[in-house]
Amino acid sequence: MTIGADRRFNQERDKLNKIVMKYAGLTVKRFYNIDHQVYQDGALSAKTKELLGMVSSLVLRCDDCILYHLIQCKEKGVSDAELDEALSIGLVVGGSITIPHLRRVWKVWEEMKSSLKKRQKREKHTS
Amino acid sequence: MTIGADRRFNQERDKLNKIVMKYAGLTVKRFYNIDHQVYQDGALSAKTKELLGMVSSLVLRCDDCILYHLIQCKEKGVSDAELDEALSIGLVVGGSITIPHLRRVWKVWEEMKSSLKKRQKREKHTS
Amino acid sequence: MTIGADRRFNQERDKLNKIVMKYAGLTVKRFYNIDHQVYQDGALSAKTKELLGMVSSLVLRCDDCILYHLIQCKEKGVSDAELDEALSIGLVVGGSITIPHLRRVWKVWEEMKSSLKKRQKREKHTS
Amino acid sequence: MTIGADRRFNQERDKLNKIVMKYAGLTVKRFYNIDHQVYQDGALSAKTKELLGMVSSLVLRCDDCILYHLIQCKEKGVSDAELDEALSIGLVVGGSITIPHLRRVWKVWEEMKSSLKKRQKREKHTS
Amino acid sequence: MTIGADRRFNQERDKLNKIVMKYAGLTVKRFYNIDHQVYQDGALSAKTKELLGMVSSLVLRCDDCILYHLIQCKEKGVSDAELDEALSIGLVVGGSITIPHLRRVWKVWEEMKSSLKKRQKREKHTS
Amino acid sequence: MTIGADRRFNQERDKLNKIVMKYAGLTVKRFYNIDHQVYQDGALSAKTKELLGMVSSLVLRCDDCILYHLIQCKEKGVSDAELDEALSIGLVVGGSITIPHLRRVWKVWEEMKSSLKKRQKREKHTS
Repeated sequence: MTIGADRRFNQERDKLNKIVMKYAGLTVKRFYNIDHQVYQDGALSAKTKELLGMVSSLVLRCDDCILYHLIQCKEKGVSDAELDEALSIGLVVGGSITIPHLRRVWKVWEEMKSSLKKRQKREKHTS
Repeated sequence: MTIGADRRFNQERDKLNKIVMKYAGLTVKRFYNIDHQVYQDGALSAKTKELLGMVSSLVLRCDDCILYHLIQCKEKGVSDAELDEALSIGLVVGGSITIPHLRRVWKVWEEMKSSLKKRQKREKHTS
Repeated sequence: MTIGADRRFNQERDKLNKIVMKYAGLTVKRFYNIDHQVYQDGALSAKTKELLGMVSSLVLRCDDCILYHLIQCKEKGVSDAELDEALSIGLVVGGSITIPHLRRVWKVWEEMKSSLKKRQKREKHTS
Repeated sequence: MTIGADRRFNQERDKLNKIVMKYAGLTVKRFYNIDHQVYQDGALSAKTKELLGMVSSLVLRCDDCILYHLIQCKEKGVSDAELDEALSIGLVVGGSITIPHLRRVWKVWEEMKSSLKKRQKREKHTS
Repeated sequence: MTIGADRRFNQERDKLNKIVMKYAGLTVKRFYNIDHQVYQDGALSAKTKELLGMVSSLVLRCDDCILYHLIQCKEKGVSDAELDEALSIGLVVGGSITIPHLRRVWKVWEEMKSSLKKRQKREKHTS
Repeated sequence: MTIGADRRFNQERDKLNKIVMKYAGLTVKRFYNIDHQVYQDGALSAKTKELLGMVSSLVLRCDDCILYHLIQCKEKGVSDAELDEALSIGLVVGGSITIPHLRRVWKVWEEMKSSLKKRQKREKHTS
């Protein structure tokens, strides 16, 4: 059974983060901590915050960062229409230079949706 | 009576946009149109969209763009805490390089809040 | 028979664009439209416009965008010397950070030239 | 008699370049040299090269660089329509984040056109 | 008695930072803390770290950030030649787009050197 | 015997540079020359200069450039702690958007350290 793009990404990310932490001084550790805290529920919902993280990553054109937030968006229940509207802002602000990233976003989104469906089907059969 | 930072900004912006439109071909006109439409209420609220526009502008470090969305955020009822949380994401994603812009954001925010208070006071007196 | 880097790129691009269009709202569709129109012949030739698109993509360091415009440049008849001079401006404006992209540009350019030669040879033989 | 935006810019630029050169080592001097050479006539015309320099500067959002190339574009005979088409590419590639710079471009362009007209009028009267 | 560019900058910076701190949540406060700690003496000297901060700010083209680190470089005893060599790397990496910032660096450097000389002269006279 | 990430990188880089030089005009050749000279020992040590090059590349997020300077840093004797402190500045200045590059830096650093150890072991055995 193959694993989805989201799981593969998370596995590789975890593996590399372990190497980072082996060498990380206090600054890097603290930064990782802040980077985790800033997306928690607060005056703004965690969902809105993930959209903010994703669109920031889109206009700065960092595929790994976009993908990370995209997976979080899926988990927080972002809909297709919400994703399209958030990405549209990134596209207008950041220009056509963001389009290759946009393409990869939707490709992974499709994969995540289809692998979710399969999982739900399997769970239905086994229950 | 002096005018606030937000009005001054809007006046200058309108003046220059008139010059742009004098020379603008179809592409620029269409782009301006899209740039207006993309922030309208939809699956995501106009308020969330303005926050997305502002944080994108922050990480790309464009003062004029940040200021424009900041004024819109004020009009859409963004609170101090919501603004702080949105900007915090921009700061973490974009790094210390965004701090000078952050300073200018809060400076204008203070000015907008104080000029709003004065206006409300005046209106109360004259009513 | 293997296919050239340009064809592979275009096939992948078309495949992903179909997914984008499946989810695209009005803004994304309109943006794609503008993005197509802006490179058509006008006061400036389509060739000059492709060079403008390519050098902009180079200084913003987007490989997919560079490659797209590079293929267009080849089709519009850009010569080796013209390409070198355009890229040189991108290199000077954008700095050594553009060099890895420059390397990939010339690598693909070589491939496109050699696959063009082969095609012409084949056509000569079969005619 | 006031001086135009272009002359003021060039005077300030020359003044600061003198300070740079006072401290400049070999690298900076050589870089300045390359930066001058790269815009000379060659396989591509100096006019096309100035457009390439200007649009690169637009997408990287450097006002001083844009202004420098804008003045050169004026001297090389770039027309209103050519300028609009080149800027349109920068706008589409770089997104709405370039709009504040676009506004300043057209403002200076207007000033340069009107100061040119005045000069021509004066010269006509005195001849 | 007029104050130097460095003092003016620091005064404005302190004033605005007070406004930032008035609204700052935990993330912003922590980030400011990290941003202070990261430049302290360690395996690398504070002087080397300020050069790293300055060149990073140069290639990202943030005048306020460059100026901040430039003042620190002066205090840490960076020489003219060391400054030139560090800036040269920024220029080569980041391209001609950094030149306007380079000009402003050397202008402020000159001002700081000349105001230092005056202060030393005054102190000599009064002692 | 497999070759390390550093050797593979250098081989690919040399191969592509040959193609670049085949088409390179005077500007590109001169730029390559400056790009080499700027990292030589001077008022600042070559080691400090490589750190400056690496951190600049990190905040501009160019993997090839980071990797190139990382290999040079290893050769100039940069320690784990020095590397961590230099990267920490890049992380704070450039934000979380640099983290994916940070991960790849430490991964290659580990590989270079382990392949160095193996080489030393082999040499010890054969001597």
